[in-house]
Amino acid sequence: MTNAQVTLVQIDNYGPWTVTPEPRREVDLQTLQSRLYADLSQLIGNRDGYVFFTRFDNMVAVTNGIDADAHALIQESIDNRYPVSVSLGIAADPAPAAALGVATDHLQAAGSAQDVDRREILRGDPVAEGDRTDDDVRIAHFDVNDATGKYTDQLNEFDSFINIEQGYAELMRYMRHEYDSLSFFVGGDNIIAVCDDIDEAAYLDAIEHVRDAVGVDLKVGVGTARTAQSAGMAAKHALETCREEHTDVEFA
Amino acid sequence: MTNAQVTLVQIDNYGPWTVTPEPRREVDLQTLQSRLYADLSQLIGNRDGYVFFTRFDNMVAVTNGIDADAHALIQESIDNRYPVSVSLGIAADPAPAAALGVATDHLQAAGSAQDVDRREILRGDPVAEGDRTDDDVRIAHFDVNDATGKYTDQLNEFDSFINIEQGYAELMRYMRHEYDSLSFFVGGDNIIAVCDDIDEAAYLDAIEHVRDAVGVDLKVGVGTARTAQSAGMAAKHALETCREEHTDVEFA
Amino acid sequence: MTNAQVTLVQIDNYGPWTVTPEPRREVDLQTLQSRLYADLSQLIGNRDGYVFFTRFDNMVAVTNGIDADAHALIQESIDNRYPVSVSLGIAADPAPAAALGVATDHLQAAGSAQDVDRREILRGDPVAEGDRTDDDVRIAHFDVNDATGKYTDQLNEFDSFINIEQGYAELMRYMRHEYDSLSFFVGGDNIIAVCDDIDEAAYLDAIEHVRDAVGVDLKVGVGTARTAQSAGMAAKHALETCREEHTDVEFA
Amino acid sequence: MTNAQVTLVQIDNYGPWTVTPEPRREVDLQTLQSRLYADLSQLIGNRDGYVFFTRFDNMVAVTNGIDADAHALIQESIDNRYPVSVSLGIAADPAPAAALGVATDHLQAAGSAQDVDRREILRGDPVAEGDRTDDDVRIAHFDVNDATGKYTDQLNEFDSFINIEQGYAELMRYMRHEYDSLSFFVGGDNIIAVCDDIDEAAYLDAIEHVRDAVGVDLKVGVGTARTAQSAGMAAKHALETCREEHTDVEFA
Repeated sequence: MTNAQVTLVQIDNYGPWTVTPEPRREVDLQTLQSRLYADLSQLIGNRDGYVFFTRFDNMVAVTNGIDADAHALIQESIDNRYPVSVSLGIAADPAPAAALGVATDHLQAAGSAQDVDRREILRGDPVAEGDRTDDDVRIAHFDVNDATGKYTDQLNEFDSFINIEQGYAELMRYMRHEYDSLSFFVGGDNIIAVCDDIDEAAYLDAIEHVRDAVGVDLKVGVGTARTAQSAGMAAKHALETCREEHTDVEFA
Repeated sequence: MTNAQVTLVQIDNYGPWTVTPEPRREVDLQTLQSRLYADLSQLIGNRDGYVFFTRFDNMVAVTNGIDADAHALIQESIDNRYPVSVSLGIAADPAPAAALGVATDHLQAAGSAQDVDRREILRGDPVAEGDRTDDDVRIAHFDVNDATGKYTDQLNEFDSFINIEQGYAELMRYMRHEYDSLSFFVGGDNIIAVCDDIDEAAYLDAIEHVRDAVGVDLKVGVGTARTAQSAGMAAKHALETCREEHTDVEFA
Repeated sequence: MTNAQVTLVQIDNYGPWTVTPEPRREVDLQTLQSRLYADLSQLIGNRDGYVFFTRFDNMVAVTNGIDADAHALIQESIDNRYPVSVSLGIAADPAPAAALGVATDHLQAAGSAQDVDRREILRGDPVAEGDRTDDDVRIAHFDVNDATGKYTDQLNEFDSFINIEQGYAELMRYMRHEYDSLSFFVGGDNIIAVCDDIDEAAYLDAIEHVRDAVGVDLKVGVGTARTAQSAGMAAKHALETCREEHTDVEFA
Repeated sequence: MTNAQVTLVQIDNYGPWTVTPEPRREVDLQTLQSRLYADLSQLIGNRDGYVFFTRFDNMVAVTNGIDADAHALIQESIDNRYPVSVSLGIAADPAPAAALGVATDHLQAAGSAQDVDRREILRGDPVAEGDRTDDDVRIAHFDVNDATGKYTDQLNEFDSFINIEQGYAELMRYMRHEYDSLSFFVGGDNIIAVCDDIDEAAYLDAIEHVRDAVGVDLKVGVGTARTAQSAGMAAKHALETCREEHTDVEFA
């Protein structure tokens, strides 16, 4: 059984900050956001977790193995280097969507995302070390079949992007509502999902749904491990197997 | 009449690189991609342009005022600091979508995005200095009405994200197909579009379409200028006016 | 005649910030400082200037061609992305040391570097566009003869470093006191000096002084141009000529 | 007894790369070097180590607690994100200078720093987990008494810098030759030394030596712990005690 530990990372009072005292230059905001995400990738990645950029002002991380002290250190490190601070809500559940729901509740209970006095909240319960198992994290790494040949090398780049985006929009909704799983676009034609304990039929169903709905062909490699890093790397290798053997779903 | 100069930034042979000799760690790829985007934001932003992350391996920039030499220097600066290089295709057209189409053609004509020998292409024609006007760039800055109150502070973060994402997916398709305009999600609840010379009725139509299709309420500020930076800042101020006066569309 | 425009970049109230409310983690301070320097390198470098890390909390830039508005934008961009702000003092003089003296005076007159209320000062006078000439900036690029063969590949790395450091310490003092020039260690075995209008005999004298005082053998390429970037690149090419022709001083 | 584990980080074949096929722009080199250092600060700092920029192409780290696998991951992470790679030599010894000597030997034995075929060497022996003690790392954090009042707020910034630099040059040599300790300038008026097991008299002697030689007044806080991070933070607190109580040396 999976037991994803999910952390919601929310920039404190970010919207108002971006327009106070007047709107800040967009290029600086883009630089700030993407670097903050890059730094979290390293801070969390060096502890074997994954973080997804999501909306950039709200990011979602898979943090199995990262305890409350490490969360506090990550929060402090951001505070030491950025003009903004972050709040963190942590929760674990067999269903990733449910975990994120509880993580979100922790922050909402502490105040609004635009409450000027709600700063650097750190709430929630990491999985106790003794309760961790080698099946806690399941990562599915999807990509689009022959995206370069069919889209990138053929279409106006915006139309390539529309196709990828449509595929992602369908998959994210379907996986969340049918399988309590959280799917994130990670660039190129890649989508990484943090999944509930679902079987091959479920992945085939999701792929078929996306193909039927928007005509985008996906394949997926799936890995399971104690941490996001290990599960994600196993998923990548499984995806390479899909590529070599022209299969739709492979488990590591 | 608008005359957007659009640059397609494409990482050379990126897909194969990410899995050679075996899959690279996702956290490093995420760090690489988001920092490359941050650096392009600064390199292009310091020359009054805008760049959007799009798919990260393919990024779209609005580069009015940035000539071929400056493009070459940006390309060289990336090459000096990253393990990957980028190719650049440049084109201008009253319709941004058409400009990106030509910019894409330039790169496709030079070879596949996954062709190992196609490196650091720089092709296309920036607008001649003498042909530039103060109406060349039109930027529309959309956001979601009360996104924090209705979504962020209420829903599971993934459901907030689904709402924002649905709004974006509808808008990007509609603006591209109805108005030859290119819309980019830029974080939070913000979408920035590079637009053709379209009027208030067109913006109201797009907003109504998104509301009807997916129930997401947008408003928009629009700015026009000689460069993306100036047009974008004007659009931000116009959006502030929408906020203060509870209007749906404001022109700077 | 040279006319170096020098900008002193000083982090506001940095010392107290690093220990408030209690000492911040050194690794975060090091990350902050070196990234701030990297960003200034890009912000100033994209405008054809040079910046040197010096003490990191006080950095020195050569900014010919960068006007007051561009300085303000650089200041704003840092403020948008860092937890600290910077003050800028600008001055020009045929002698770089004198220019930095006036630039320093501007900030000292505005208050202490540790005055909590002295923030984002921007004072001083860039060279008027009409007064700029192609001889304004003279850059000398020194390196150590066969540093890799004699030091790096032979000695304990700390002893290599001591040798390089001694050579630098002697050169910086001598060039400042004898020739009103400012010399900065830039990594490896490289020192870049912003120089007064001095001739070949002066460079030979400085090289001989360093050899006599601490036994470190230097060579130098010298370039002169309208901007630091052009003068510096010319100096690098001249240094390559020294390398090929085994000479001590080359002018571009 | 101390037992510092020291890692020499050397960029592979960096000098030739900076001038091939012709000299690269200095601002890009500066950006590359300082960001590589910033990333190592985080990669090593997140594992409780310290790294010093030294010459930037050769950096020195204190890595107690970081095993060979973690070193390999750091090396891989740099390779994934930079156009250059790094080699790592590791050694431990009660005397930090001796440890760095052995670490240097490991790389020299593998080839020249400018050997194009010597890439990503990883050699040497981290301290076995069972041999680690709470006294392994001794960090001394020096700063200059009233540097802001006496230098920064009074002198031409270059003369302030000359004073700080002279103090550093004297201390680094003296501590290395008299006490087998490695001292690194870390910005502002701060010097951090990795020390052998030396007592208060030794620190007082070093401070007196620097005062006599170059007229710069130092004070120092000293901390000892299992890792550089803990020892260094203890040293910072001890230095705060010096500041409050106007003492020259404090042990945590």
